[in-house]
Amino acid sequence: MSAYADSTALAEAALIMERCNDLAGLSSHPEKLERLHLSPEHRAANDVVATWMEEAGLSTWQDPAGNQCGRMEGREPGLPALLLGSHIDTVPDAGRYDGMLGVLLAIQTVSRIRASGIALPFALEVVAFSDEEGTRFGTALLGSRALAGTWNPDWWNLTDRDGITLAEAFQDFGLDPARLPGAFRRPENLVGYLEAHIEQGPYLEDADRRLAVVTSIAGARRFTLVMTGHAGHAGGTPYNRRRDALLGASELVIEVERISILHSVIGTVGRLQAFPGGVNVIPGRVEFSLDLRAEFDVDRDECLRLIFEAAENIAARRNLTCDATEIYRADATECDPLLQRAIAAGIQSTGDTEPLAMWSRAGHDGMAVADLTRIAMLFIRCRGGVSHHPDEHVKRSDVAAALDAFEAAVLAVAVTESGTVIV
Amino acid sequence: MSAYADSTALAEAALIMERCNDLAGLSSHPEKLERLHLSPEHRAANDVVATWMEEAGLSTWQDPAGNQCGRMEGREPGLPALLLGSHIDTVPDAGRYDGMLGVLLAIQTVSRIRASGIALPFALEVVAFSDEEGTRFGTALLGSRALAGTWNPDWWNLTDRDGITLAEAFQDFGLDPARLPGAFRRPENLVGYLEAHIEQGPYLEDADRRLAVVTSIAGARRFTLVMTGHAGHAGGTPYNRRRDALLGASELVIEVERISILHSVIGTVGRLQAFPGGVNVIPGRVEFSLDLRAEFDVDRDECLRLIFEAAENIAARRNLTCDATEIYRADATECDPLLQRAIAAGIQSTGDTEPLAMWSRAGHDGMAVADLTRIAMLFIRCRGGVSHHPDEHVKRSDVAAALDAFEAAVLAVAVTESGTVIV
Repeated sequence: MSAYADSTALAEAALIMERCNDLAGLSSHPEKLERLHLSPEHRAANDVVATWMEEAGLSTWQDPAGNQCGRMEGREPGLPALLLGSHIDTVPDAGRYDGMLGVLLAIQTVSRIRASGIALPFALEVVAFSDEEGTRFGTALLGSRALAGTWNPDWWNLTDRDGITLAEAFQDFGLDPARLPGAFRRPENLVGYLEAHIEQGPYLEDADRRLAVVTSIAGARRFTLVMTGHAGHAGGTPYNRRRDALLGASELVIEVERISILHSVIGTVGRLQAFPGGVNVIPGRVEFSLDLRAEFDVDRDECLRLIFEAAENIAARRNLTCDATEIYRADATECDPLLQRAIAAGIQSTGDTEPLAMWSRAGHDGMAVADLTRIAMLFIRCRGGVSHHPDEHVKRSDVAAALDAFEAAVLAVAVTESGTVIV
Repeated sequence: MSAYADSTALAEAALIMERCNDLAGLSSHPEKLERLHLSPEHRAANDVVATWMEEAGLSTWQDPAGNQCGRMEGREPGLPALLLGSHIDTVPDAGRYDGMLGVLLAIQTVSRIRASGIALPFALEVVAFSDEEGTRFGTALLGSRALAGTWNPDWWNLTDRDGITLAEAFQDFGLDPARLPGAFRRPENLVGYLEAHIEQGPYLEDADRRLAVVTSIAGARRFTLVMTGHAGHAGGTPYNRRRDALLGASELVIEVERISILHSVIGTVGRLQAFPGGVNVIPGRVEFSLDLRAEFDVDRDECLRLIFEAAENIAARRNLTCDATEIYRADATECDPLLQRAIAAGIQSTGDTEPLAMWSRAGHDGMAVADLTRIAMLFIRCRGGVSHHPDEHVKRSDVAAALDAFEAAVLAVAVTESGTVIV
């Protein structure tokens, strides 16, 4: 497919990508991008995003969950809002487009609609969610769960690696946990939620397309696993007396891959560390993570059952114990058919007459927002499908096409809502 | 075998164990024992050990490598010295006897000989080595290598987890790297080196014996391994595009066990961590350690060849790379036959007429000291063979027997040296 050629859109895409670069500079590491929920970098990112929102004509506020919000009224004040957005937290050693690109596309879309003078039959709100990845506290979607009103009070006791609780982190950020319910939105005040996001997979690139409509978001479950044996001297302990937790964990890591492939599920162990961690000490404990996702929840849960069965067998054979704690669960989320059609119309407006449709293997804020209002998503091609890595890359011409498509999708929702676009 | 019954020796054993407890309180963690080379806790441990040395009648100094030393002259000043000692650094989450027990037994042995009024044909020196485990800088035996004069200047650039170089750590501890050669000893000033140490294995317990003569110390090689793939989003990246470094490392961990058992070698992966470490990120890099030891160096090296071959095959199949850096190498060390006989005579003096002899699967300071002077070791039974773990435990009656045996061994060396013990 040829490069997208509208020079105005290309200039706006350049601005969006420059802002992604600016945000990438707000990191806890000088040489790599890591911006954690409620960190000083998060503070700085909210502030700069608020500035950009104001330049685009949005009135801004930070909600009681630390989500940075902006609103532009529709043809009259106080109308229900169509939410646009994504997240601005990152994984460790992240790329610069995952989340941030969606926020900046949303802001630029508002700027365009404001400039066009179109008076919409709803307000537009942009949300830069505070936490989607769950990097800091292990539980994802904290920002969008707050907005959706599906907050679990147990989460206040979640701790980060330094032992700081979520409640303490809120206070350190200048937020009052007691005021959190102020972040909850009411469905009657909302029209829906649209999010643009890089695909984070190679399917668009393989199909030589720029953009896709998302049909559903994979259900995911995440666990912290602890394999426990007994530490001991690496020299003095014969093999038949060892209770090496790392050998057990290593076997399970391989089983996760084997079972997942067999059941068309995506299973990943992303975090693993052996303790106490001496070069000459048999590991007595291994802490590791398990992330499972599938298009259909039933496949995911059957795969999980088999993985736990494998864990039990390995632990029994090696005289270990294995404990699992679920830290995140989201069932598969359907995108709204009408909003999907608006996204498809948006893509068609860029010259792609038969937009590709695909399910999202990655989780997104929309999973949480779907408990509150209908959602849909626009996917943007990224190079090699690479994401959660500094090599994450999008083409400027693809961003330009995404901007045109996203704006057109918002206008298509307006048509759906009112029968006509009010100019 | 019945408990050892000499009430004086039992009281001295109680004192030694109480001092092991005191040293266990000098830790960087409030609830577990970790005392790193050149840490503030090391400073405090040297100071308290110096006090105990002085009480035992030793004149004390800290050598330019941070080893805490003490000397009691023989029948005339300036005679060559028989070195007694062990180390006072620890692994992470350590037990309280590994190393420390040998230092305290040595001090108590000097105290006894001084009290007895025996004038030896050599001086006695006790050394509390600053680093045997290599926990902080990854390279073991730094204290005893300095004493032996086998220091490698490249070591100054070794770094700890915080990026502090060994040279900087020396300076922070109040030591001047330029003065290190002052720690080197000369062989003509030494009679030999005797070390008492817990077995760190279950063989004594299985044989129902308290003490053993060590015949040789296993040769060991240690490596830092890095498996490198490519980080990526755990959802979006299909299995056939993944380059998951943790899957490769996990396969190799299992291969290390399989190959080691097959070749009667002891292979351990004690340290392993996946990076970047996000629950939803495919690991792009895994750093892990390999510790290999065997009675005979040729077996160890053949096993290593097979492990590296396995690493290459795994990496090729999974589109990863695997790099290994050798961080420690010590070939098998023979204990001196005459000094072994002195240790055996010491054990016989406790009523065990046919002392058990065994090779040490663990490494010890003696491996480094052997480059300088002849060495021998006394092993003490420990419960369940457990070591490098807080459950490390020795019986008081075994410590009492060890004290009697160690003293008798020193006197046996004196007989060997002079033809008779001078009273």
